[in-house]
Amino acid sequence: MKFIDLRSDTVTELTKDMRKSMYDADVGDDVYGDDLTTNELERYAAKLVGKESAIFVPSGTFGNQLSLLTHCNKGDEVILGEDCHIVCHEVGAAAVIAGVQLRTLKSNNGELSPMDIETTIRKEEDIHYPNTALICIENAHSNGRVISLENMAEIRQIADKYHLPIHLDGARLFNAATYLDVDVKEVTKNVDSVMFCLSKGLCAPIGSILAGNNEFINKARKYRKLMGGGLRQSGVIAAAGLVALKDMRDNLKSDHEKALYLAKELATIPEVSILTNNLHINMVYFKPSNIDTSKLVAYLLDKGIKICDVEDGLMRFVTHYWITKENIDYVIHSMKEFLACQ
Amino acid sequence: MKFIDLRSDTVTELTKDMRKSMYDADVGDDVYGDDLTTNELERYAAKLVGKESAIFVPSGTFGNQLSLLTHCNKGDEVILGEDCHIVCHEVGAAAVIAGVQLRTLKSNNGELSPMDIETTIRKEEDIHYPNTALICIENAHSNGRVISLENMAEIRQIADKYHLPIHLDGARLFNAATYLDVDVKEVTKNVDSVMFCLSKGLCAPIGSILAGNNEFINKARKYRKLMGGGLRQSGVIAAAGLVALKDMRDNLKSDHEKALYLAKELATIPEVSILTNNLHINMVYFKPSNIDTSKLVAYLLDKGIKICDVEDGLMRFVTHYWITKENIDYVIHSMKEFLACQ
Amino acid sequence: MKFIDLRSDTVTELTKDMRKSMYDADVGDDVYGDDLTTNELERYAAKLVGKESAIFVPSGTFGNQLSLLTHCNKGDEVILGEDCHIVCHEVGAAAVIAGVQLRTLKSNNGELSPMDIETTIRKEEDIHYPNTALICIENAHSNGRVISLENMAEIRQIADKYHLPIHLDGARLFNAATYLDVDVKEVTKNVDSVMFCLSKGLCAPIGSILAGNNEFINKARKYRKLMGGGLRQSGVIAAAGLVALKDMRDNLKSDHEKALYLAKELATIPEVSILTNNLHINMVYFKPSNIDTSKLVAYLLDKGIKICDVEDGLMRFVTHYWITKENIDYVIHSMKEFLACQ
Amino acid sequence: MKFIDLRSDTVTELTKDMRKSMYDADVGDDVYGDDLTTNELERYAAKLVGKESAIFVPSGTFGNQLSLLTHCNKGDEVILGEDCHIVCHEVGAAAVIAGVQLRTLKSNNGELSPMDIETTIRKEEDIHYPNTALICIENAHSNGRVISLENMAEIRQIADKYHLPIHLDGARLFNAATYLDVDVKEVTKNVDSVMFCLSKGLCAPIGSILAGNNEFINKARKYRKLMGGGLRQSGVIAAAGLVALKDMRDNLKSDHEKALYLAKELATIPEVSILTNNLHINMVYFKPSNIDTSKLVAYLLDKGIKICDVEDGLMRFVTHYWITKENIDYVIHSMKEFLACQ
Repeated sequence: MKFIDLRSDTVTELTKDMRKSMYDADVGDDVYGDDLTTNELERYAAKLVGKESAIFVPSGTFGNQLSLLTHCNKGDEVILGEDCHIVCHEVGAAAVIAGVQLRTLKSNNGELSPMDIETTIRKEEDIHYPNTALICIENAHSNGRVISLENMAEIRQIADKYHLPIHLDGARLFNAATYLDVDVKEVTKNVDSVMFCLSKGLCAPIGSILAGNNEFINKARKYRKLMGGGLRQSGVIAAAGLVALKDMRDNLKSDHEKALYLAKELATIPEVSILTNNLHINMVYFKPSNIDTSKLVAYLLDKGIKICDVEDGLMRFVTHYWITKENIDYVIHSMKEFLACQ
Repeated sequence: MKFIDLRSDTVTELTKDMRKSMYDADVGDDVYGDDLTTNELERYAAKLVGKESAIFVPSGTFGNQLSLLTHCNKGDEVILGEDCHIVCHEVGAAAVIAGVQLRTLKSNNGELSPMDIETTIRKEEDIHYPNTALICIENAHSNGRVISLENMAEIRQIADKYHLPIHLDGARLFNAATYLDVDVKEVTKNVDSVMFCLSKGLCAPIGSILAGNNEFINKARKYRKLMGGGLRQSGVIAAAGLVALKDMRDNLKSDHEKALYLAKELATIPEVSILTNNLHINMVYFKPSNIDTSKLVAYLLDKGIKICDVEDGLMRFVTHYWITKENIDYVIHSMKEFLACQ
Repeated sequence: MKFIDLRSDTVTELTKDMRKSMYDADVGDDVYGDDLTTNELERYAAKLVGKESAIFVPSGTFGNQLSLLTHCNKGDEVILGEDCHIVCHEVGAAAVIAGVQLRTLKSNNGELSPMDIETTIRKEEDIHYPNTALICIENAHSNGRVISLENMAEIRQIADKYHLPIHLDGARLFNAATYLDVDVKEVTKNVDSVMFCLSKGLCAPIGSILAGNNEFINKARKYRKLMGGGLRQSGVIAAAGLVALKDMRDNLKSDHEKALYLAKELATIPEVSILTNNLHINMVYFKPSNIDTSKLVAYLLDKGIKICDVEDGLMRFVTHYWITKENIDYVIHSMKEFLACQ
Repeated sequence: MKFIDLRSDTVTELTKDMRKSMYDADVGDDVYGDDLTTNELERYAAKLVGKESAIFVPSGTFGNQLSLLTHCNKGDEVILGEDCHIVCHEVGAAAVIAGVQLRTLKSNNGELSPMDIETTIRKEEDIHYPNTALICIENAHSNGRVISLENMAEIRQIADKYHLPIHLDGARLFNAATYLDVDVKEVTKNVDSVMFCLSKGLCAPIGSILAGNNEFINKARKYRKLMGGGLRQSGVIAAAGLVALKDMRDNLKSDHEKALYLAKELATIPEVSILTNNLHINMVYFKPSNIDTSKLVAYLLDKGIKICDVEDGLMRFVTHYWITKENIDYVIHSMKEFLACQ
């Protein structure tokens, strides 16, 4: 049985075209720089996001942590939102690998206040202060929202004023560009480095990209080796990544539409309150009331539907390439069935 | 010329009695456990704060960082206030030495919300989560306020619920007890480890204490050596520390009264707005308006008065053992003089 | 033009069968544990080397560093040979990620003296000593030699005496078993954890395995996420890894024979002195005399042959699946040609 | 009862003059740079060893680790002897605090071969290599020997060739200069930074000095704060340090003579074989045969004599300021007594 999997867009299987591209991939030893497909992917990706250079990495967490390690010296301070992925979902890696102090700011539903950032930057030299070395933004945010270009531009101004680089955790970068209906370079133009995933909505099986200027990426290439991310015939997965970047970006619009449809249908269930402000991309967050959610998870699994249980009081359903409108109807139907006999 | 030094209570010179005690100190090699004065200080200090064991360390920062290193494994997460000393004034050490991720919470003027703490604790095991390993409280807070015993008790309840230890940064622990008018054990009873300074208001020249249960302190003793804090004839400074603990605690009440007096007098200056909510201990915070503060600093220095310049919009004057009521009158007079001809 | 590539066995392209297996691979999200192919590979690999459990990692360096991070606490000491890969070729990662002190022993051409190990282990508790936490062995060694099973058994005895685990860097584990003509479990039975590569002689494009007992691998699974090695549809490369483990191990014997043939032919060149003691696996080390090696590298490249330049006075040619006897004849012929007109 | 303590020269109590100097010390808050005595000590110490600048630190381990942290970036490699203090007796701190990889060389009784150093330096850029960042020498070595100035000069040449700094662990720097009968600047002229202890033979109760050029010491000053070594009225112990540097250096000659006398007398005991090659300073190493050393330790303790038990097959007796010729005679007498009735 094939499941309807709404847990995340990380569950997306690769497409037939990706399988074909992997089958045919021209490969070499990438540690020697000989993998032509990886080289092509890195060039293509850099150009796509308007950066000089790019490097292929095994995962989004790897790319973010590599960026911290490359931008910062040990003991430096990184300013970022309290609810971002680097803080919440990367296993405390920033203190282990880069050895940096995360200085978290209150997040206004994913958006940081430029004024808060300015206040937090260590301006004068003081023997008690670590060095502020980096600002991180997450866009699209994993709370389902897209940060506005205005907010990014304001943060850029602050960063420039204090000569600080900005790293963008763009795990769902193209979802952000899609929602904003702009070229992705509009989202990346105000940051120094950007990580984005080839998996998730774009359906590649493995891999992310870290992009920045030449000096940054050269330095990152050595640190990638240190972190164990020097792969050999990486062309086999880079090939799928190229398909993801070339052919799959346009599908995200449809993922977002499916999320809106899903939200609309969920809203017909009285026990569900949709977080309508967090409906920018392919995610639907909602607050369940009077639902035994662990029973719901089990019930739906039995019906061939995979969902995650509640986290911090919220449930999240994620649409993607492999979810159809019919699947959504079936999910809603099954939920109502469950609630009827709960 | 002897300065009137209001920059901090860290500027306190040692007393004549301390000098005598140092002169007479019975010493030995403390790395071998042979320094009788240090041993006595550690026993005395442990008993004073109601813990099984204590260890003498070179500074408050050393004691806090040693506590993090001892309580946590690399990559663990520590919950603490966004404005506490460990976050703001310890040079990013937590990420360098202990390798832990600081998870900062909004501070309500130094006080943490038990509910926020509970929300932030990583409750279930999840492959994306670091392990929550420690909660830190600072009392008295360096913002001039004392955290209530009720707040500490509530945090203890949460900590117990999730089997988490609490570390207390009590750099000014006895100021807190003095303000609360309770035995210091009332302040430390709800924490597993506590660091407090022998310098600052207590006037010892060097040194702090880290106290906790036997197992914790034994482990800390080895990590102290790793951090370069294994001293030899430490009895010479431990002797002053004993005087500090035995004879100087009662003086803190007077320091607090001097701070209230200073605040009252400062309030007569129109360009000064006192932070009256932060007037618990020996610190007076105020917001200057229409004062060229760097000129004021220079002017007062010329008059034999040392103050720090504005930081984050605020000025702070600190009273201590060596500041008299007359000194305060002279400071106020000099400030008014400056403002008159500004 | 297709190159004859003798630089390393890391340059091996994947086979047609691997491409097919990748095309057909059954995949899922491995962070959720849903990737059936990866699960199968991990089970198969664990059983093959006689361990309870195994985990798929992106590279050999990743697997070794993950093992250090999992076995050790920060500040622990690891005993290993001065010339091993972890010391020489992993970019200093052990001090960055695991935070451990490498205590290197003189290596007798790759083999460690059990007596040296015993002397080096920190036996008594002493406040100056880090904790000895791990012994590492490399077999086959990247110097071209296979460590004897007797040596491994002796080291096991020492390890047992002091209750220490052993990690085996088996990047070329199956080459060792092939040379020794024993089941691979004979090589791994005396170690607690083993890392081995699916790439290199086995020709998989990407990936290595870390195996050990259940507790160790469970712990490693979380640390893999921390290090950025949590992949999504990893089945696409795990599929190739399964082909590598099932079908390619028998080819190593032929790689070794080709190395012996290559060594025999190289020995006919007067400017070449073969390190005959280091001829156990698929590597031929030799000392060139009166050869302008950088010119040789360029000359051969022009002839379609890739080799590495001299390192520490030695050259290394590596045979593998894609090198034929005819290729070797052609290489020898081209070298002679070059030397004739040098 | 006052013990005759031969365990180490770290056990030396401070002199009366030191106590007086501490009593009278002019102090201030050294974190603000206001401690005149500490400032004087740092200036005096820097000049004494021919460096631009110096910083006072709590211990020798602290000074060495601060030097590593200041010279290196995380992941860098440090070349040093396998038997030096940083490797053997600093609790693995280098991997925890500085995050550097120690690359140990075989030591020829404390002396490193310049050729070995040259071989070990990472010369070319290679993606597998950490960056060689520092060479460390220990002189006098804690094995009782003084490294020759010729050896130091040769290492300097290698360091210059590869633009590497040298750090000198000179815990017993003045013992080395005394043995070599040269101005101490002859010992320090070939190194970039030097740590030396004020305690040990010089009898100060606490503290060491790290000296180097202005840029290095400025950077170290901030890292000292990070490591918890920012002290307040440090003048109280700096005062004793000044006495140590000004008045106590000349006594070391006598300590060395006492060691030679002790060795001569010990040699009259048949069960003792003196390591005559390691008799340069105030330490006598010997190999006991047919002695139940733990009983000897207990027997002598009962007679008012403290010695350390055997370590790695050797015993070590250390002479210092508080050991007289009569004490030595009494020790020898007591040992013979013990052996007679063993």
